Formats: sequence, structure tokens, C-alpha cells
Amino acid sequence: MTIKLYDLCGKDKDRRFSPYCWRIRKALQHKGLNFETIAVPFTGIADIDGNGAKTVPMVVDGDIQITDSFAIAEYLDETYTDGPALFGCESAIGISRFVEAWTYSALHPSIVRMVAKDIHDILEEKDQTYFRATREKALKATLEEMHATRDQHRTQFHSNLLALDLVLRQQHYIGGNAPSFADFIVYGSLKWPAECSDYDLLPQKQRILDWYSRLDQ
Amino acid sequence: MTIKLYDLCGKDKDRRFSPYCWRIRKALQHKGLNFETIAVPFTGIADIDGNGAKTVPMVVDGDIQITDSFAIAEYLDETYTDGPALFGCESAIGISRFVEAWTYSALHPSIVRMVAKDIHDILEEKDQTYFRATREKALKATLEEMHATRDQHRTQFHSNLLALDLVLRQQHYIGGNAPSFADFIVYGSLKWPAECSDYDLLPQKQRILDWYSRLDQ
Repeated sequence: MTIKLYDLCGKDKDRRFSPYCWRIRKALQHKGLNFETIAVPFTGIADIDGNGAKTVPMVVDGDIQITDSFAIAEYLDETYTDGPALFGCESAIGISRFVEAWTYSALHPSIVRMVAKDIHDILEEKDQTYFRATREKALKATLEEMHATRDQHRTQFHSNLLALDLVLRQQHYIGGNAPSFADFIVYGSLKWPAECSDYDLLPQKQRILDWYSRLDQ
Repeated sequence: MTIKLYDLCGKDKDRRFSPYCWRIRKALQHKGLNFETIAVPFTGIADIDGNGAKTVPMVVDGDIQITDSFAIAEYLDETYTDGPALFGCESAIGISRFVEAWTYSALHPSIVRMVAKDIHDILEEKDQTYFRATREKALKATLEEMHATRDQHRTQFHSNLLALDLVLRQQHYIGGNAPSFADFIVYGSLKWPAECSDYDLLPQKQRILDWYSRLDQ
């Protein structure tokens, strides 16, 4: 049976840019599972299947319906034990949550400020209104103000990515010799700006660029 | 057989403050292993057992002798499989290396600047000379200059600890329900300033303070 992945999209339905959805797309690929994606714009999330979903990704697998990317990854590992693991053991789940907390607190605040205006510009009009209102309120700045100062945020962003560069000196993936869900979490955070903006925000660190390329296939 | 842990000390040999040694002390306790510590000042490391060691911690277990805290932890888990695990699986080892890289890049630069002068002041004279020369060169500032600006470093330090605060909203330990080596890595980085300085540098985040207390026993 084919798993359905509800996936955030822009005005162009092939433009998929949610970091949380990318985590799950990579997780499904990693486990070798058949899936199809269903494009959903921001203002369409509440109408998915008429069930009042609040966030994507949402995965529907037969009678099972799950939101929250971390919960989806745990479900996939528990349910599909034949394919490669996303975690491997309980402590790997715990420490992967730390990696998730790190992306959320150390990477996302910079990324959203660097590309918020670019995200806005790829949305359909109804989504643009929603996006501008919610993001300008949350980030306490207009999209244009954030855009004007994005080089400053890039400096902090590069500094915060040093942990990734350091660990890749020792191993090919955050998970060690093979990619794990922790890799997909961080990859999703970098795929997000790449899919909605031309802004060159990755550091010129060859190990990070190589790691990203290996995952971006 | 009792494992020997060579452990960095100050002028007072009971003053143990190396973050890397604390990781291993906690790891040995976690696994329920018998061990004794041998106090070594900075300038005594090269003379340990006459074998030209360059760093502590060094663990001697019968004929086995290992330096590098991460390698020691892997050795303990591989050798003593009866006690609680430090990792649990290969991907947990990989992701723990990410946590190590994060402490090194996001926490240590602030911590060393906040307490470098305090570390100096607890050392014996020969070590003071070595410590001042190496640290002032590496950090491009005098110990007194760093001491004068430590409140600024504390602000950045608190900001970088947000990932730890976030993950502890969901679970008791970085490793999930039970402490793992990733917990001991971060704990060691916070125990280090606590053992050599009276400077109040932890954030007033109850979850972090509670986690630290649970480990600090």
C-alpha cells in the first residue's frame, strides 16, 4: 500500500520547501517505502481530508494518520522494521531529539530571517497574506526589514554550523557511517532555503557541501 | 581489577576540573565499574607512567591504556557489556559525536573565556606559567582581559544552551529516559567551570538546573 505524505507547496505545486516535510520524504526514501506526496498550500492545511489538521507533514498509512515529523519517523521505524533504521536504539531517538532542538534553536531563527521574503514571494496570494501576518508578528519585523539584514544573520548561521563541520571531520554522516534521522533533520533545514530562495547561504565548507550533496539525491 | 583514571588537578589535588575527565568519571560510575583516580597537574601529564602521554583523561585497564575521552567511552561499552550502555547502537555513537562537536564549538569557547583566569588561580605555580602562555596565545587575549568581559560571553553561552533547554522539555535526559554518554559530555562541560570558579554562569532555566542536579551526584 502506498503511503501518502501531505507536503507543503508554493504557488507552483512542485515547489516543496518545508524543512519538516523534507525530513519525512528523506526518511521514507531511506526506508525504501512506496509513497506519494500530496501538495498542500499553507491555507489548505486545515482542509486536508476534512479532518482539521494543523500542520504538515501528515502521513496517512492505511488507517493510521500522523502529524509531527518526529512522531512520524518513530512510527516508520517501529512499523517497517525490514528497511534501514532511522534511529537504531532508544538512546539514538533521545539524542536525535537534541539534534532537532539544535536545528530549531540554532539554525531556524537565522534561516527564516534570511529567506522569509523569498518564501512569501513563491506563495499564492491567499497564502502570502497569511504568511506575512503570522511571520511579521512572530519575528517582530517586516519581511522587507529581515531581507535587508540577511547578511548579518548569515554570519551567525555559519558560526552555528561549526558543530556540523566538526563532526563531519570524523565521519560521513551525523549518524556515523550511514545516514540517520538526525541527518535528515539537519538536511531538511538546509533544503528549505534551497527550495525557496536563490540566496547563497551555505558556508564554503567542503565537508558540509559534500555531506549535503550525498543526501540531496 | 580496578581501572585507573588519570585526572587533571589543581594545586589542591582534590580539585578536579577537566570537562573531558568528568565525562569519563561519569561513564565509569554509570557502568558500575570500580575505578580509582590519579591526580595529575597540567605539567605532569607528559610524565604519566613515563610513557609520554599528551592528554588526560587516560584510562589504564590491565594492559590496556587509552587516551581521548570518546575512545575511552567506546572501549568501556565494548568491553563491559553487562552494565548500562553509554551508547546503545552505532547511530547513537555517531550522533553523540555531534553532541561532542556542539559542546566544543558552541559551549567551550564561551566557558573558557569566562573562567580562564579562575582556572589559572587554582593551579600550582609551574602550571600557571604553562596555562597562561598557552591560553593567552590560543585565545588572543590576556587572562585579565577575558575576565573583564565575561558577562558578554555569558549572554552568548545562555543563548547557545537553548537547545539543551528545549530537549529537556520532552525528556529527562539527552539520551531519553536514561542518561547516555551524550549527557555526560554536556554535563562535563558545565561541571568544569563549577569546579574551578565561583562565577554563576548557568542560566536560570529550571529544566537545565534539574538535569544538572540529577547528574551531579
